[in-house]
Amino acid sequence: MKNNTYCVIMAGGVGSRFWPLSTPQKPKQFLDVLGIGKSLIQMTYERLLLVAPKENIFVLTNERYAAIVKDQLEDLNSDQILTEPIRKNTAPCIAYAAAKIHALNPDAIMVVSPADHLIVRENRFCEIIQTAIHRAKEAPRLVTLGIQPTRPDTGYGYIEFSKEATILPGSVTAVRQFREKPDLKTAESFLDSGNFYWNSGVFIWKTATVLDAFQKFEPELFALFANDLTAYNTPFEQQKVTSAFHACKDISVDYALMERAENTDVVLADFDWSDLGTWGSLNMHLAKDENANAVIGNNVYLFDSQRCLVNVSNDKLVLLDGLNDYIVVESDNMFMVLKAENEQALKNYLKSAEKGSPTFFQK
Amino acid sequence: MKNNTYCVIMAGGVGSRFWPLSTPQKPKQFLDVLGIGKSLIQMTYERLLLVAPKENIFVLTNERYAAIVKDQLEDLNSDQILTEPIRKNTAPCIAYAAAKIHALNPDAIMVVSPADHLIVRENRFCEIIQTAIHRAKEAPRLVTLGIQPTRPDTGYGYIEFSKEATILPGSVTAVRQFREKPDLKTAESFLDSGNFYWNSGVFIWKTATVLDAFQKFEPELFALFANDLTAYNTPFEQQKVTSAFHACKDISVDYALMERAENTDVVLADFDWSDLGTWGSLNMHLAKDENANAVIGNNVYLFDSQRCLVNVSNDKLVLLDGLNDYIVVESDNMFMVLKAENEQALKNYLKSAEKGSPTFFQK
Repeated sequence: MKNNTYCVIMAGGVGSRFWPLSTPQKPKQFLDVLGIGKSLIQMTYERLLLVAPKENIFVLTNERYAAIVKDQLEDLNSDQILTEPIRKNTAPCIAYAAAKIHALNPDAIMVVSPADHLIVRENRFCEIIQTAIHRAKEAPRLVTLGIQPTRPDTGYGYIEFSKEATILPGSVTAVRQFREKPDLKTAESFLDSGNFYWNSGVFIWKTATVLDAFQKFEPELFALFANDLTAYNTPFEQQKVTSAFHACKDISVDYALMERAENTDVVLADFDWSDLGTWGSLNMHLAKDENANAVIGNNVYLFDSQRCLVNVSNDKLVLLDGLNDYIVVESDNMFMVLKAENEQALKNYLKSAEKGSPTFFQK
Repeated sequence: MKNNTYCVIMAGGVGSRFWPLSTPQKPKQFLDVLGIGKSLIQMTYERLLLVAPKENIFVLTNERYAAIVKDQLEDLNSDQILTEPIRKNTAPCIAYAAAKIHALNPDAIMVVSPADHLIVRENRFCEIIQTAIHRAKEAPRLVTLGIQPTRPDTGYGYIEFSKEATILPGSVTAVRQFREKPDLKTAESFLDSGNFYWNSGVFIWKTATVLDAFQKFEPELFALFANDLTAYNTPFEQQKVTSAFHACKDISVDYALMERAENTDVVLADFDWSDLGTWGSLNMHLAKDENANAVIGNNVYLFDSQRCLVNVSNDKLVLLDGLNDYIVVESDNMFMVLKAENEQALKNYLKSAEKGSPTFFQK
């Protein structure tokens, strides 16, 4: 019997926050940031193999990363790697993938997942996803995964659901509203009230349902990508998609659909999750030595140092002394020593430094 | 007319203190530690060209460094590069060089200079050296250069001379005694008394005078190197020297001769000098930016950092943040971040780290 479940891995991000490990040439999703021998996209792919057969898994990425995807996910055929010619945020990408998959199988259920998030309890993830798939199958709903918050994180978006809902992990409930990244006080009130979960960026829906939503809320995107499906899965697909991407607007799926639609549901998920959006959030998931240092790299020697995150190539010898609470990263002839509390300043540092030596940063 | 002045550059040191810039494979004297486009031995050679014609300049180094010397001092002929097959400290090296030069020219005056010291006012150096040469010519004296101390440095040896001496820079006076590296209190008393100068490790003497001293105080060394001069400057020299080095003891010229001899003089020198023995002493001679950072490297970006010494390759991009009083050095895939106040601990750090990855440190 034909399997109606499809997965789309969103792998177009440029991951500028993890410099110098990530660069525009090789962003975060393609890196083994946890030092476990697998990149984040490889982990995501393996996780989704528990959800759909491999021929039903697609990766959506920027043209420039297609070769890396092919290299890291050897099992995929070339026609499972969908490429955007220019970056236009998540809504156009999802419109493209939904239209293509719908052309393949009008009964398709589609699971959309970021390539670069960390999920620790895979079995629990599978159970939650099955709940979401079941919900998306039985009703024309746009289903998201909400993550039970463990702290008032101001780096995440939140999903509010009805206070009256059964807040049982694994249950499904209607979304009341999506809330963008809050300030700390607001985040704390979210946690207190109990009916706010983190927005994981994982979506589950029938292709029919999401295409309906595009038609309703973003008719331009619908017209460009989904009005006429005849080119998909033919030699004319790339040409159609290239011109659609050049013509379309830059908009996230949250703005385009989720915040406007009335038919949104959230599955309350309780697996360990992180978007690994900052060095700090990565650090939480790394093993520590007796001085609370997290060290990736075979030749790192720490003296009189505590609570450092060190991530360097195995062919580099690194001796560190007298560093408390620093992020020390080396990659491809770029070396960074950053006070952990200044992580937010990194973006500005890079901007300022790029003026002096742009070629380095563009590698 | 034949020029009787000869120079011997002592270039056998392994410079372990400047790791990772210096390694046993390429020690300090061969490095451009000041970031000025010349190594220390190149600077020393150019300075000595003001003292003797280039054909009278010899370099004494370990066998393993002969190729580097040849490479860095292209003007030298191969027979001007004298090699020790094993490290035996300065006395055997000086016995060898003195004997060889004496065989060439029994009227020779010999200037011995470390390869890896910094001397800033070269003209003043020349005047002082001429005074020393004049003194060594007119009398059978072992002449040293003493450096007017500017601080109670505990890293240097001191030369005491008579309190009654004219302490006029440039004057010559008899040495009362040589004093090893003192503790701080003693060093302070040295400075207070005014008749203690730093021992520069530069010596000036007739070859005849120093060979006499060897015969008197180190008859074994004399017998091995200088009793029979017939092999020098012939194809048999290397064989003779190799067996002499294997047979001889390990001893410094200070212990072997200077501390025992009665015929020692010191020229009171007032040029700027440093043995560049530590990162800290190097740092004193580097140009600083507005935050008192000394930076060598074309692609170094400092943020919120002060009083750091940074020395990295030009092909490395280095971003540093939140570092005050650190030494940051990269060389040949080795990277060090060291709290400046812990510089003395580096040797122990390396010992401890070498247990984990000896191959790295031996490059």
